[in-house]
Amino acid sequence: MTVAEKVAQLGSFWAKDGAAEGDVAPMSQELGQEAPGFDAAIEGGLGQLTRTWGTTPLTPEQGIAAMRERQRRVMAANRFGIPAVAHEECLTGFTAWGATVYPTSLAWGATFHPELVHDMARAIGEDMAGVGVHQALSPVLDVVHDYRWGRVEETIGEDPYLVGTVGAAYVRGLEDAGIVATLKHFAGYSASVAALNHGPVRMGRRHFRDVVLVPFEMALQVGGARSVMNSYTDVDGVPCAADRWLLTDLLRGEWGFTGTVVSDYFAIRFLQSAHQVAESKGDAAALALSAGLDVELPGTDAFADLAAQVASGAVPEEVLDVAVRRVLEQKAELGLLEPGWEPRLDAAADIDLDSPRNRAIARQLAEESIVLVANDGTLPLAATTRVAVIGPVAADGLTMMGCYAFPNHVLKHHPGVEAGMDLPTIAEAVAGEFAATTFTQGCAIDGDDASGIDEAVAAAAAADVAIVTVGDIAGLFGAGTSGEGNDAPDLRLPGVQHELVERVLASGTPVVLVVSSGRPYALGGLAERCAAVVQAFFPGEEGAGAVAGVLSGRVNPAGRLPVGIPRVSGAQPWTYLMPPLGRRQKGNTSLDPEVMFPFGHGLGYTDFEVSDLALSSDEIAPDGSVEIAADVTNTGARAGVHVVQLYLRDEVAQVTTPVKRLVGYARVALEPGETRRVTFALHADRTSFTGLDHTRIVEPGWFTVWVGHSSEDLPLSGRFRIVGDVRAVGHDRELLTPVTIA
Amino acid sequence: MTVAEKVAQLGSFWAKDGAAEGDVAPMSQELGQEAPGFDAAIEGGLGQLTRTWGTTPLTPEQGIAAMRERQRRVMAANRFGIPAVAHEECLTGFTAWGATVYPTSLAWGATFHPELVHDMARAIGEDMAGVGVHQALSPVLDVVHDYRWGRVEETIGEDPYLVGTVGAAYVRGLEDAGIVATLKHFAGYSASVAALNHGPVRMGRRHFRDVVLVPFEMALQVGGARSVMNSYTDVDGVPCAADRWLLTDLLRGEWGFTGTVVSDYFAIRFLQSAHQVAESKGDAAALALSAGLDVELPGTDAFADLAAQVASGAVPEEVLDVAVRRVLEQKAELGLLEPGWEPRLDAAADIDLDSPRNRAIARQLAEESIVLVANDGTLPLAATTRVAVIGPVAADGLTMMGCYAFPNHVLKHHPGVEAGMDLPTIAEAVAGEFAATTFTQGCAIDGDDASGIDEAVAAAAAADVAIVTVGDIAGLFGAGTSGEGNDAPDLRLPGVQHELVERVLASGTPVVLVVSSGRPYALGGLAERCAAVVQAFFPGEEGAGAVAGVLSGRVNPAGRLPVGIPRVSGAQPWTYLMPPLGRRQKGNTSLDPEVMFPFGHGLGYTDFEVSDLALSSDEIAPDGSVEIAADVTNTGARAGVHVVQLYLRDEVAQVTTPVKRLVGYARVALEPGETRRVTFALHADRTSFTGLDHTRIVEPGWFTVWVGHSSEDLPLSGRFRIVGDVRAVGHDRELLTPVTIA
Repeated sequence: MTVAEKVAQLGSFWAKDGAAEGDVAPMSQELGQEAPGFDAAIEGGLGQLTRTWGTTPLTPEQGIAAMRERQRRVMAANRFGIPAVAHEECLTGFTAWGATVYPTSLAWGATFHPELVHDMARAIGEDMAGVGVHQALSPVLDVVHDYRWGRVEETIGEDPYLVGTVGAAYVRGLEDAGIVATLKHFAGYSASVAALNHGPVRMGRRHFRDVVLVPFEMALQVGGARSVMNSYTDVDGVPCAADRWLLTDLLRGEWGFTGTVVSDYFAIRFLQSAHQVAESKGDAAALALSAGLDVELPGTDAFADLAAQVASGAVPEEVLDVAVRRVLEQKAELGLLEPGWEPRLDAAADIDLDSPRNRAIARQLAEESIVLVANDGTLPLAATTRVAVIGPVAADGLTMMGCYAFPNHVLKHHPGVEAGMDLPTIAEAVAGEFAATTFTQGCAIDGDDASGIDEAVAAAAAADVAIVTVGDIAGLFGAGTSGEGNDAPDLRLPGVQHELVERVLASGTPVVLVVSSGRPYALGGLAERCAAVVQAFFPGEEGAGAVAGVLSGRVNPAGRLPVGIPRVSGAQPWTYLMPPLGRRQKGNTSLDPEVMFPFGHGLGYTDFEVSDLALSSDEIAPDGSVEIAADVTNTGARAGVHVVQLYLRDEVAQVTTPVKRLVGYARVALEPGETRRVTFALHADRTSFTGLDHTRIVEPGWFTVWVGHSSEDLPLSGRFRIVGDVRAVGHDRELLTPVTIA
Repeated sequence: MTVAEKVAQLGSFWAKDGAAEGDVAPMSQELGQEAPGFDAAIEGGLGQLTRTWGTTPLTPEQGIAAMRERQRRVMAANRFGIPAVAHEECLTGFTAWGATVYPTSLAWGATFHPELVHDMARAIGEDMAGVGVHQALSPVLDVVHDYRWGRVEETIGEDPYLVGTVGAAYVRGLEDAGIVATLKHFAGYSASVAALNHGPVRMGRRHFRDVVLVPFEMALQVGGARSVMNSYTDVDGVPCAADRWLLTDLLRGEWGFTGTVVSDYFAIRFLQSAHQVAESKGDAAALALSAGLDVELPGTDAFADLAAQVASGAVPEEVLDVAVRRVLEQKAELGLLEPGWEPRLDAAADIDLDSPRNRAIARQLAEESIVLVANDGTLPLAATTRVAVIGPVAADGLTMMGCYAFPNHVLKHHPGVEAGMDLPTIAEAVAGEFAATTFTQGCAIDGDDASGIDEAVAAAAAADVAIVTVGDIAGLFGAGTSGEGNDAPDLRLPGVQHELVERVLASGTPVVLVVSSGRPYALGGLAERCAAVVQAFFPGEEGAGAVAGVLSGRVNPAGRLPVGIPRVSGAQPWTYLMPPLGRRQKGNTSLDPEVMFPFGHGLGYTDFEVSDLALSSDEIAPDGSVEIAADVTNTGARAGVHVVQLYLRDEVAQVTTPVKRLVGYARVALEPGETRRVTFALHADRTSFTGLDHTRIVEPGWFTVWVGHSSEDLPLSGRFRIVGDVRAVGHDRELLTPVTIA
């Protein structure tokens, strides 16, 4: 291969490139033929085809035709007949017109149900593989640090073990379908200063290793992901796209990763234009490639200058070769280099991207993700209840979806184009469960128009119960209140929604508050006065029915909070994963940062108790395990699912460690009166942390474990001790806590 | 010396120790005789006497007697006759009953006048030295990272060069008077998560070195400080009190520091009780001593177990000896080991700790620290203006003082005891400047009682101008809205003060908003509608007159903001010292974190222009200098002082660097029509930063410099280039930018 041919394998092409301002090609055109600049871009080869499906509303027939035509031309344009890797987005489902919109990642976290998330991801992957896609730019493994960040909805939560277990299951699902999963954003994105999208991250290496990196380790080791995408941010001054320590020394050296590292969109150019660590885009390309970044997305921009960088000697050709070999090895593994390869397009043109199978998974996930946060007994509501549905979230099916769902991500650019699927609203879904319902919007999600609130108050006054629905609409960069680029200065409900809730509460009619949002909002002052509070995190196309089902009792809620719900709108960044001085303090500060409803919290329509904690030993070796067992009993009158949670505290360590952290959980289905025994096999590796010398160690000493219902409701506790010498552990350590349910 | 005698030299005693609930001895008692536990504590010697003056209201006669008696007993209780180092607080003046209360540190920053701060500190030091004090636990060199933090008032501002130059001048002033200055808090305290006092700091080493540590380097190298106090916090998991890298490798190894490191109060014990990195207080003591912490304050608590730690072999006696030698060397340097030494108590019992000299300095500092933030021409007010003074800040002289002023720090424990000095209110001071004034409080500083606002609105309606005074009262741990332990969840004005301003604005009478506070508050939505905005930062006992003088025009304001004044109440932490992606971004985020009035901003009653920028060269060597000169002209009709500011940008660097940072400033007094030429001699060292390999370097390349009026109003810009090889620089680098005014 010539240098130019090698460079071509590291580049990509996006049909949006060079398109007229504001836009992608309209639905009626055949993208494959008219993508501007395509022929020039693929000369000598092409690494990746960017989002053929995801940039414009295509029917399956159109999409398949476009993909086939593009691959044909790519193969014809290089001497070796090498096709491109076709990548797409699929965070909440294949980001394509008419494809199933599953709940957003934060809702997966709320299910505490990795197996179901695995099934969703496999369904997504099979749909994508069937229409010629090879790589998916998911999942997001950022651990929430600041609830104000716009992309909180795209994360799985604020605990690295939850993120890592659910994230690894998602990865496994995609990979089971033959799709290359891409872990993002590597790493640190979610901890930017003031929650500014792309903002600097000032974190030190210890917290970075112990919290930020852990889900990535799990998704590689447990999930088997084959690609990683850089974070846009810098960490302590070093942009991730140019961080050789991160992308090479750690990822490949320490962790043994052999797949590809792809750039987040435009991130290499940002090294010059935004981070200003490169004088030119050629320098930016050299920096990124040398750091270990293999493929530029979404188009070949900075990497277009790589040939010149090689010619000038700024980049040794051997460095180029390393990246090219990784790309070609992955193409070989995908079968793209087989003689006679053709795009796998085994789906018929009438393929159903929103199939009954998909919908069933979407529905189950939505139902399992709803969190019943508070309930004075008002829920479930009898079918005869006269219900006033109020609030902007109930008015629009788009409020059920995250910002990476095709309708919210792309369709805003295509006024008049339907979403391609049935998008019921909460108002409609609730009307299906109760005999007598009204709907009054009251206000918009955003903006300061409170003129409709009077009518909402009147509607509430005429009903037995007011279901007040508030929260977010997801979108990109200002087109919404949650999602990429929609960072909030504080955690007050957007617009006049707080006033809407206040005013309806003042009507005297009991209020069931339903929040559907991409981040938790401060509910202090409101939640105490509501009859019940239900939290949904963009539950997807089946979300409205799931919410309605929880309200009527058709669904017994079992979701648990993957992020806390705060009391006050400020006091961020804050999550539960803090050493003692980051938690409630005695006297040192007048500020109480603790949330109103903690991580792991969630109610249902039956009651659970835990009892009879037993540890298999109170002393283990630094490479030993301890079994921690407890009974869980359904003490209520209805079958239900409980999420039993195991937390750990290192009582004394050489560095500060969290007051408690989740180290295991079990989803247990129980009939009324039934008891089952849950046993967690906790390996000493699970106590490890990054020590003073920045190596990961198991440190002897005493540990507390708790078993219970949430991070703040832990009736059972015990202690064990690790006895022996400090033991260094690496990436091959035990990352999971196996659970048995007897 | 026996081990016990050595340990005794590392300990201390506080008369508060063991006192009955509620605390220090009442004023009428002779502390020296009755301090509980004193005899036991001093057996074999004593390192330091803690705050003899500062814990109870003592007359000079009582204080001198107590000090003399205590030292006599300390000397008698050890074989060598070694007295104790007597330390006191003095952040805003000697923290003693009746002593001058100077403006708080943030106000020093607002003056941009290190020479005057030096004179203040020398006056403070002379007063303290005169009554037998040796060491002062000041200054606070924390660089502001989060405006919500309670101790923002104790800092000098958000820029390390401003903090370092003003802080070093303060240190030099104390040291000129023979007082050991103590740099605190070493280091990172101000960047705790969510601004929680004592909360974890997650920062990486690069930002730590380039921002947090710089003022400490300056105060040591330029100021000559002889002591350092640890920060309570941990940084990336390592508590500062146990951080050997920080307290030894860096402080003594890299920087060559030879003085003492003292603990912040109770900080060693906190290693066990709060940070939980030690199993016992003996372990905590061993950790701290081994890390390089020499002296425990305020009492001997954890260090009481050091002898046992030595006996058990946990701490080698040589480690103990190192600390003891430092303490004894400092005592020798202070003359305490001279034969026949007696406490220096050359002051008469009728010493005036609030002397006319002190008051004159306090007045000048107060006047120079007031920042005229906005003015539509309403200010200055004619003497004939009918003025309605409104608001809680004008009602109480204590609002003029920081939390380390004796009246706010200590007197709250002594109801009925007068402050010992004249404490005029803004209402009284304004009444002295105008013929017709009224005063209506309207509301309290804190709390939700808005019932007095109607009366305030009526008073405004009857006046030509309403002067609405809002802000903070300083105190400790909940006793106030600013100060140690009073961290805010957001930047809304406390209590109902925002509503007070809104309501008075609605009256139609022009509003001059006066904010006296310890932190900046969000003024978006208010400031735009005010005729003028004046910001004071706890201006001290002469502050009320200074504020009134600015309003009447008797004082031509020249203060400049040492912290930005934000528009929104959230979006923290944020300061101006950010790389590009931390500043206003194009499209990446819907959140605009930029402040309403930026760092360095301030108006006066005349106008200034800058012109004719010239650089001595556009190319310098990596160890060279460039002279940057500009004319500054008073184009108005009144004499005034301008603060000409020099900012630097590294156009491309190997790590992200701030969009701009202050590298020089000059306070220039000009008559109307007068022009002077200001020349900054910028050494290449001043461009240095912590590079990829964590060493400090001067990196060749292009730099932008700006000269102008604030960090956001910079009419003049130029460029120069450093040509040559990357050059490593150390602690001995050039830290200052010399200025000449021709």
